Amino acid sequence: MPPRKPGRHFFANPGPTNIPDSVLRAMDRPTLDFMEADFLEIYDTARAGLQKLLFHGGEIFFYAATGHGAWEATMVNLFSPGDTVLIIGGGYFSSAWAALTEKFGIHVDLMEVDWRRGADIAQIHEKLAADKSHKIKAVCAVHNETSTSVVLPLPDIRAALNDARHPALFLADTISSLGCFEFRMADWGIDAVVGGSQKGLMLPAGLAFTAAGPRALEAHKNSTCAKFYFDWTAMLGRRFRSFTGTVPIVPFFGMAESLRLIEEEGLPNVWSRHARLAGATRAAAAAWASAAGGVELYCQDPSRYSNSVTTILTPEHINADSLREILREQFNVSTGGGLADLNGKVFRIGHMGDLNEPMILGTLAAVEMALTRANIPHGNGINAAMEALNGA
Amino acid sequence: MPPRKPGRHFFANPGPTNIPDSVLRAMDRPTLDFMEADFLEIYDTARAGLQKLLFHGGEIFFYAATGHGAWEATMVNLFSPGDTVLIIGGGYFSSAWAALTEKFGIHVDLMEVDWRRGADIAQIHEKLAADKSHKIKAVCAVHNETSTSVVLPLPDIRAALNDARHPALFLADTISSLGCFEFRMADWGIDAVVGGSQKGLMLPAGLAFTAAGPRALEAHKNSTCAKFYFDWTAMLGRRFRSFTGTVPIVPFFGMAESLRLIEEEGLPNVWSRHARLAGATRAAAAAWASAAGGVELYCQDPSRYSNSVTTILTPEHINADSLREILREQFNVSTGGGLADLNGKVFRIGHMGDLNEPMILGTLAAVEMALTRANIPHGNGINAAMEALNGA
Amino acid sequence: MPPRKPGRHFFANPGPTNIPDSVLRAMDRPTLDFMEADFLEIYDTARAGLQKLLFHGGEIFFYAATGHGAWEATMVNLFSPGDTVLIIGGGYFSSAWAALTEKFGIHVDLMEVDWRRGADIAQIHEKLAADKSHKIKAVCAVHNETSTSVVLPLPDIRAALNDARHPALFLADTISSLGCFEFRMADWGIDAVVGGSQKGLMLPAGLAFTAAGPRALEAHKNSTCAKFYFDWTAMLGRRFRSFTGTVPIVPFFGMAESLRLIEEEGLPNVWSRHARLAGATRAAAAAWASAAGGVELYCQDPSRYSNSVTTILTPEHINADSLREILREQFNVSTGGGLADLNGKVFRIGHMGDLNEPMILGTLAAVEMALTRANIPHGNGINAAMEALNGA
Amino acid sequence: MPPRKPGRHFFANPGPTNIPDSVLRAMDRPTLDFMEADFLEIYDTARAGLQKLLFHGGEIFFYAATGHGAWEATMVNLFSPGDTVLIIGGGYFSSAWAALTEKFGIHVDLMEVDWRRGADIAQIHEKLAADKSHKIKAVCAVHNETSTSVVLPLPDIRAALNDARHPALFLADTISSLGCFEFRMADWGIDAVVGGSQKGLMLPAGLAFTAAGPRALEAHKNSTCAKFYFDWTAMLGRRFRSFTGTVPIVPFFGMAESLRLIEEEGLPNVWSRHARLAGATRAAAAAWASAAGGVELYCQDPSRYSNSVTTILTPEHINADSLREILREQFNVSTGGGLADLNGKVFRIGHMGDLNEPMILGTLAAVEMALTRANIPHGNGINAAMEALNGA
Repeated sequence: MPPRKPGRHFFANPGPTNIPDSVLRAMDRPTLDFMEADFLEIYDTARAGLQKLLFHGGEIFFYAATGHGAWEATMVNLFSPGDTVLIIGGGYFSSAWAALTEKFGIHVDLMEVDWRRGADIAQIHEKLAADKSHKIKAVCAVHNETSTSVVLPLPDIRAALNDARHPALFLADTISSLGCFEFRMADWGIDAVVGGSQKGLMLPAGLAFTAAGPRALEAHKNSTCAKFYFDWTAMLGRRFRSFTGTVPIVPFFGMAESLRLIEEEGLPNVWSRHARLAGATRAAAAAWASAAGGVELYCQDPSRYSNSVTTILTPEHINADSLREILREQFNVSTGGGLADLNGKVFRIGHMGDLNEPMILGTLAAVEMALTRANIPHGNGINAAMEALNGA
Repeated sequence: MPPRKPGRHFFANPGPTNIPDSVLRAMDRPTLDFMEADFLEIYDTARAGLQKLLFHGGEIFFYAATGHGAWEATMVNLFSPGDTVLIIGGGYFSSAWAALTEKFGIHVDLMEVDWRRGADIAQIHEKLAADKSHKIKAVCAVHNETSTSVVLPLPDIRAALNDARHPALFLADTISSLGCFEFRMADWGIDAVVGGSQKGLMLPAGLAFTAAGPRALEAHKNSTCAKFYFDWTAMLGRRFRSFTGTVPIVPFFGMAESLRLIEEEGLPNVWSRHARLAGATRAAAAAWASAAGGVELYCQDPSRYSNSVTTILTPEHINADSLREILREQFNVSTGGGLADLNGKVFRIGHMGDLNEPMILGTLAAVEMALTRANIPHGNGINAAMEALNGA
Repeated sequence: MPPRKPGRHFFANPGPTNIPDSVLRAMDRPTLDFMEADFLEIYDTARAGLQKLLFHGGEIFFYAATGHGAWEATMVNLFSPGDTVLIIGGGYFSSAWAALTEKFGIHVDLMEVDWRRGADIAQIHEKLAADKSHKIKAVCAVHNETSTSVVLPLPDIRAALNDARHPALFLADTISSLGCFEFRMADWGIDAVVGGSQKGLMLPAGLAFTAAGPRALEAHKNSTCAKFYFDWTAMLGRRFRSFTGTVPIVPFFGMAESLRLIEEEGLPNVWSRHARLAGATRAAAAAWASAAGGVELYCQDPSRYSNSVTTILTPEHINADSLREILREQFNVSTGGGLADLNGKVFRIGHMGDLNEPMILGTLAAVEMALTRANIPHGNGINAAMEALNGA
Repeated sequence: MPPRKPGRHFFANPGPTNIPDSVLRAMDRPTLDFMEADFLEIYDTARAGLQKLLFHGGEIFFYAATGHGAWEATMVNLFSPGDTVLIIGGGYFSSAWAALTEKFGIHVDLMEVDWRRGADIAQIHEKLAADKSHKIKAVCAVHNETSTSVVLPLPDIRAALNDARHPALFLADTISSLGCFEFRMADWGIDAVVGGSQKGLMLPAGLAFTAAGPRALEAHKNSTCAKFYFDWTAMLGRRFRSFTGTVPIVPFFGMAESLRLIEEEGLPNVWSRHARLAGATRAAAAAWASAAGGVELYCQDPSRYSNSVTTILTPEHINADSLREILREQFNVSTGGGLADLNGKVFRIGHMGDLNEPMILGTLAAVEMALTRANIPHGNGINAAMEALNGA
């Protein structure tokens, strides 16, 4: 192992996220038969808590998988080769969703959009209205595009579907929004939700899920994609209504605890805390950006700012990763890099999950010092963040 | 939660297995970016250690998945719809392997065998020799059939392939053998190996893998099965040559430690310890079986006894699960139940992973007391086990 | 570090004891100011739970110390140089109590007794009756003498005090009895109790305490022994009514959990479990002893058998420690050795705290195998233990 | 339990200190016989590492105790009733040391000094020179007075002793300096050192020690203070040359790891890191103090600034504890309060142990926001701290 850097590691990568100690401890436990009463109770508690977090009363299919596995599971269970789906572009993750979908013979209409503003709702409406034959089987939206830090207003997309009287399923990827800011599956008319353990749920990566509403379960019956590991029909016949093979017990002990922490804090308080800390981050970024030749907020539409992550453009001549290296090597702070086309051009500050004021302020102060060390002109971000938090 | 039963839980279920405390502690750690140097080093260490354990110098594709996921990954990466594979039956797991394979349009020739003795090598040879057109693309064997506790002699199968000059790939499922008794991928001419984290590797469930030799990698190039999450080609282009999506770091910190423990003990010592404790278990079972109307060893071929699990038949009028319930409720001992057709007819004592003499003796004494409480006639098993261990 | 021995370590030393995983996890937590509300609540909960366990409504003075420190604290807070106390002998620990007391200028009348039977109550009565001038300020009894496994009937000693109308304080050392078998401070008229964390409380060593009733607190006012670290008067003025210096928070998080476990199981059930497992141990020992030239139970008065530890004499020509070494090196089982005069002559099996049937049976089976390997003649102990547990 | 505050707790109390996760995990382990080889090796490793940290080749007596216990142990082992010692005053802890010493009949000459500047070396020299009869048996100095954040220059005191050709023992309390800034026992001619686990050693409270050089061991032989629990003579006869009663194993597993971390980082680097972070803290404090009517650094002699803690005076009309409450309740930051006479007048920022830039910056930003919320005028401290760290 490389020598440990002293002090606590500041993990400001937009996922995975910081895991509360009590969640880590809940997962640090001996093996148990997954059919034991102890586990069944924990499982049912965690599942019910997750339904509550989703505002969803229906099925949740859990997989031992990453979020990409949950995407695949969702598509192969809902659609058939030859079907067409509309995926709203806007960043690395929506593109990846499209790419995987095509692998299974499903046609994808990937709507191209300005990555710095996110999709135009009117354009979505137009597409749906034009699809008189209802060829589009589903509209797929990434709620919070983690690569760009742009949020899509899901209720507006539902309104577009309703207005166009289009019967397409509405699918949302909430991997980096759930547990961070408002999301309501049932109220917003979302038929299937893809989620993962490693962000707002404050757990390690490796558990992912699809929440499926009644229309999704109905659509599943007609799906002909080949599947086994991710097959919902088989899952519905098992005790856990989830999983193929050995049920991993560890994440559920963690999830029961992380959902208990969210419940104890109160979900609206969790959301407002994320808003507050995100606001401080953006205040710092705006102040840094005030200097000519400096950084810039990537998202250009303030109504779509993300409360879980902030993507920041570095000046053209500066590789964002060199800034990240200063942060990592000199300050023990981990930030996210740019994905695909944004590689080297942006860095991303994650502010989701188990976070508070001194954590984000320590991170922002380190970023500001790194800007200084990298000779990037910048305004006084840390004071702006403190003022934002103090409501000034 | 139901009230905790006092004292340590004796986990004698044939997987998952007991996790050493130092492995649990290694996994109880804060989040880290999976691209951090600290993790890269751990990952590379764990991967190299696993190659050594497998006696394999080639690729290992890791998945966030259960063992069933690794099966699926292996089949969809190696074959194409319309291909034919020979799966050697013999228990619940070989049947499941066959069932999943067929889901992807691959024809399965499931060789039926006597579950209590395992496959006849001559019959395998015959099948291969008869396949003059080499329609059979692969021979698939479950090394240790966890449901029946019957071991297949993989070198004999390789010899049959060689003797028949058949070019089929040779695939082995080592989920419940690797790290428990002898397995040598390269020496035994095995082209692809399916393994999981939760047995001999002494880790929680949720990580699985395929080790792929050169012929498997070559075959992969022609595979046309639809795939994304499990796609090897995409994996080969990534830093980790594994995984789709966020790399789960936790199991690798655990694996580095569990492989260090195996290395420290010495693999031959690990194998001989398994043999010794398995021998004691079978000695107890044989002694119990000496009473008329009592239990019986399921496996009828002593040359195929498993050193990782022992399946025991209960008398016809006794539901094996009632015995397991006594063990669980009155003794805090967890054993495995019968799978599929064997449900209620057998119980299974796992003796794999992190186990020693007093652990197995405590388990066997509890089983013997449970036999008494369930009014099942039995001889003196515990003394037989002690004598076996004392070399009497 | 020496290489780890595979499998779980069987800790059958009579203290410290096995610590439940949930207690270990409760103590595995970051630092906290001991004046924080979180800690105050845990502290008060643990203290109230300990009062309940003691059947005591008064003060508890906690010390960062071993049990020896609590002895010292108790003596220097209650007495003055020149005072006389009666200490009931019977083993290593009562002798040590006497030795320490004398260090502080307090005269000790150490009543000599047959170590294999414990004190004669009549003799105690006689001593007290003879002390017309009430020179004896206290009667000090070790409830469970851990070195010999002989229990003193405390209510009988209280009766002797009452009968003799003697005003001496009654002090009990419950270090290896509390939480293991019946003890009732108030009902039994005990004025001060010395206890430690590392046995029935299932915590690591390092925390000890004195529970003080009203007569002890009154006596304290007249004590002139020099003291600072252990001074009760100063403690009574602090928030915690305990401790000098930084309050160690870790053991209280553990104690809150261990007392919760005891409460959940039910104290009478905890006592009967200890009785049951102790009975099995003695049944094994009796069976081993049935062979000529073999081992022998040390305690010769069955009415005083200990339910927390069993001391076993080895044959004269056998050093008990060689047997213990076989257990440790070949079976990963730790037993206790003989203390002082008993060194090399006895070994001790601890059966206190977080223990169940398979744990004790695994231990006893290992002891029996070690007897075989050491060529010590022995009967069939493990079967006797199993029969005892099965109520045969 | 009160609801958990989200995010990581920022512990900036001057002791105990932040415990690295790997140290917590090393202590989270099952029970072991303290005579086991595994423990002996860890113990010897930890002891040797501590000797190295102390620059001391002699005895170390460990106690299950707080630092106050180690003080008591040191005094009762070195002196006799009627002896006289010179204790250099200057804060809460030196006064407490004096108070305890007197409890044991030892005369204390407590040298009164200006708490905001610490002792005048000339005055110490004068005292020693005047003591022609060598009545003073020892000079006792608190290296880092945690209550005032004033450091005493120990080599200067040694020079005064030498210059006065005074044979008094030289005792130092290094509880809050060892592992934080330079301390060299042998080179500085210190005869006995009192230390504790909970500060620079980054362990929980509950383990304390005295390091004793040859002159101290010689002096011990003549000591007549009553003692048992802390008696060095008895300890020297035991395997561990330490402890009375059950050896607590847990802190040694932690200490072996914390000393390994210090070794890995390099002690000079540990010291310079403490200097750097302390400098940033003082830069912030100086900037805050620049506003009229605001806070003030307590220590008035820059040559005696402490690198492990900074004491800050609040304006007269402000109770420092109200500021601390804002920090605790609104920012999840724990700071230290004023002790004894300083109660309510100061707050203390601990910056010792496992600390880095973003940790201290997050803390300082929170303090600055709390100053704002408490309407205490203040300059821009966080920017001053960042400039200090950036070497501006």
